[in-house]
Amino acid sequence: MALDKTMNREPGHIKSFSLQADRLQITWSNGNESAFHYIWLRDNCPTVRHPIVGETMLDPLAIPLNITPQEVQLTKRGTLQIVWANDEHQSDYDPAWLYQNAYESEFREARRFHPTLWTTASLENFLPEVTYEAIMADDKSLLDWLRLLRQYGFTIMRGVPLEDKKVLEIAQRVAFLRNSNFGLHFTVESRPDPNSLAYTANKLYGHTDLVSREAQPGIQFLHCRVFEADGGESLLIDGFSAAEELKRRHPEDFELLITLPVGYRYQDQETDIQFKAPMIRLDADGGYFEIRYSNALLAPLDIASDLVVPFYQAYQNFTRILRDSKFEYKFKLQPGDCEIFNNRRILHGREEFYPQSGARYFEGCYIDTDDFLSRLRVLERQGKDFRESLSIVRSSSK
Amino acid sequence: MALDKTMNREPGHIKSFSLQADRLQITWSNGNESAFHYIWLRDNCPTVRHPIVGETMLDPLAIPLNITPQEVQLTKRGTLQIVWANDEHQSDYDPAWLYQNAYESEFREARRFHPTLWTTASLENFLPEVTYEAIMADDKSLLDWLRLLRQYGFTIMRGVPLEDKKVLEIAQRVAFLRNSNFGLHFTVESRPDPNSLAYTANKLYGHTDLVSREAQPGIQFLHCRVFEADGGESLLIDGFSAAEELKRRHPEDFELLITLPVGYRYQDQETDIQFKAPMIRLDADGGYFEIRYSNALLAPLDIASDLVVPFYQAYQNFTRILRDSKFEYKFKLQPGDCEIFNNRRILHGREEFYPQSGARYFEGCYIDTDDFLSRLRVLERQGKDFRESLSIVRSSSK
Repeated sequence: MALDKTMNREPGHIKSFSLQADRLQITWSNGNESAFHYIWLRDNCPTVRHPIVGETMLDPLAIPLNITPQEVQLTKRGTLQIVWANDEHQSDYDPAWLYQNAYESEFREARRFHPTLWTTASLENFLPEVTYEAIMADDKSLLDWLRLLRQYGFTIMRGVPLEDKKVLEIAQRVAFLRNSNFGLHFTVESRPDPNSLAYTANKLYGHTDLVSREAQPGIQFLHCRVFEADGGESLLIDGFSAAEELKRRHPEDFELLITLPVGYRYQDQETDIQFKAPMIRLDADGGYFEIRYSNALLAPLDIASDLVVPFYQAYQNFTRILRDSKFEYKFKLQPGDCEIFNNRRILHGREEFYPQSGARYFEGCYIDTDDFLSRLRVLERQGKDFRESLSIVRSSSK
Repeated sequence: MALDKTMNREPGHIKSFSLQADRLQITWSNGNESAFHYIWLRDNCPTVRHPIVGETMLDPLAIPLNITPQEVQLTKRGTLQIVWANDEHQSDYDPAWLYQNAYESEFREARRFHPTLWTTASLENFLPEVTYEAIMADDKSLLDWLRLLRQYGFTIMRGVPLEDKKVLEIAQRVAFLRNSNFGLHFTVESRPDPNSLAYTANKLYGHTDLVSREAQPGIQFLHCRVFEADGGESLLIDGFSAAEELKRRHPEDFELLITLPVGYRYQDQETDIQFKAPMIRLDADGGYFEIRYSNALLAPLDIASDLVVPFYQAYQNFTRILRDSKFEYKFKLQPGDCEIFNNRRILHGREEFYPQSGARYFEGCYIDTDDFLSRLRVLERQGKDFRESLSIVRSSSK
């Protein structure tokens, strides 16, 4: 069954329903159909929440697995009302909420977010740029920017004042800062005693940051403050787009990289951080979740012996694609520009630069994916009543 | 092949080696055998690191997939020396390092950490207790404590001074604090306008905190400052132990809970945090990784329709086990006690308390698993030369 695309985000009206053995079958006014198991309905009864917190107070063991309704009706108020056979508890559901939470595969598919995968060629037609002034000025521009960032995985922000820690102000417009062993705020320049290749003048191939941490930082902000040096062009690569290319060209390599956890490790005088994860991870719905790619931090392979050579083959093939000019977008940031990107999708790097030719000084920070998406959702629900939105989701103890 | 257990953590000596088509086969003086693929060896050559950072500078594309040695020998210095056929590059390996990084399944299995799973009965024989004084005084006690915490998933710390934010001092003895939408530091008491059930006086069944975040906080610290109220006993449950019980009693339920991602959601006025993950997660090696359990934050199920009833069955069976007195350890904290636990293994809760009978006031904070384990590793390597440890692992760009 294909969903009626014009209707699938509208609150549907219930045209008719029928009671099956373990579920309620609903036909919507737009012709779509969906079933709700009785146990699911009872579990999501809106009346069992804490009056202030909105968290469910219903004990999961209080619902019989084979629960059935005694009576189901559409009320004059427009709700679907169920009286339950076991305890005569009455539940009233908002049909719009049921429609939004229908879990037939077509409904679930229609709710999925699809990022716009890009290549260097497609960026010639559209570069996701925003201005500092606009996003600081109003929440509408802020929301537009966050959506753009989610869609393309990066944006270039222009006109950021050349002041210390301005980059933190931008990040904190979105959420609280993500801490790491590099601190809440870091500066990128060539240093005499570096604890990372980032703090040298070497070329850095596209990579994601902090790969050895369980949760790589979600959004990275890099504010170009001074750029007088020769070289040092920025590189950005859409890792999801490159992964798609790998899947097309070397499906068996792709399969290995999405399933085989490999180890990553960072250490310095104070730190020894390790984690194992596949280089390409898919999410619960089969979409892209993240890329974890940094050659310098790949730990000695600790995988089944018969996978060692296949892994290197897959890794090399993926690396070739990541470095292909089809995917590697190269450009020079100017003082006042800030590149902002999803560190788990977009690989970033730079060409070698020449410190003797002039200074190159960036400031950076991170926020978490959780908090980025939270901010986006909260901005999207603005104008709607929060209690109303609470009443239609089972939510919220620490 | 079973490893010689008495020898498997000792640096082995190379008794003999033989060259196979794509790998070097080594027989160790203790009788164990292991093979290293040539490409693995070339990739882990110790000579290709940045002189200060220790990160590998070797381009992954620079190694031919079918690389072979021109010559292999044991040197007088005791290293395994390989001269490579393609470019005559010379690599020298420390045999002890090779032994520590051997990747035959027996070696990998021998390196795995095995937590001590507990029940309330086993805690009667041994309760993991430490004192504030000892762990603040010296690094040896600190290391012992962190190992205990890793082993049992929790410890009770006694004698913590009754001062504000002392809990932060304890946490920061381990690592930097983990921030969240509840702040770096939180207090737990009954509040008139709670944004979480934690801030009511209700009973809280065992749960893990911040389940709707991608990375649940790793270690939680809860310092009992004032406890005059009736009720409010603390609950701790070893989620890994309970999961083992589920696996024994209901293997099909266990299988579903380790494979099926379900949604979690927290929202309040400022926040809407969502994530999908299995309720029980295994790590890359098949060990337990984490439990994600909080009924109040379970989002309306958004899973394949035919899994809805099986999920509720598995969830109810797991819930029954978690509440079984075999697993639910109940005790009353005293002012000056601090419970410290792996929030991703140990479920915590409390009995209802009666605010009118007296005050109950806790302070809490979190640190991340990454940083907890990093601190433990760094303490374990103390006394060893850091550069030496760098030279034997491929490590460390942001």
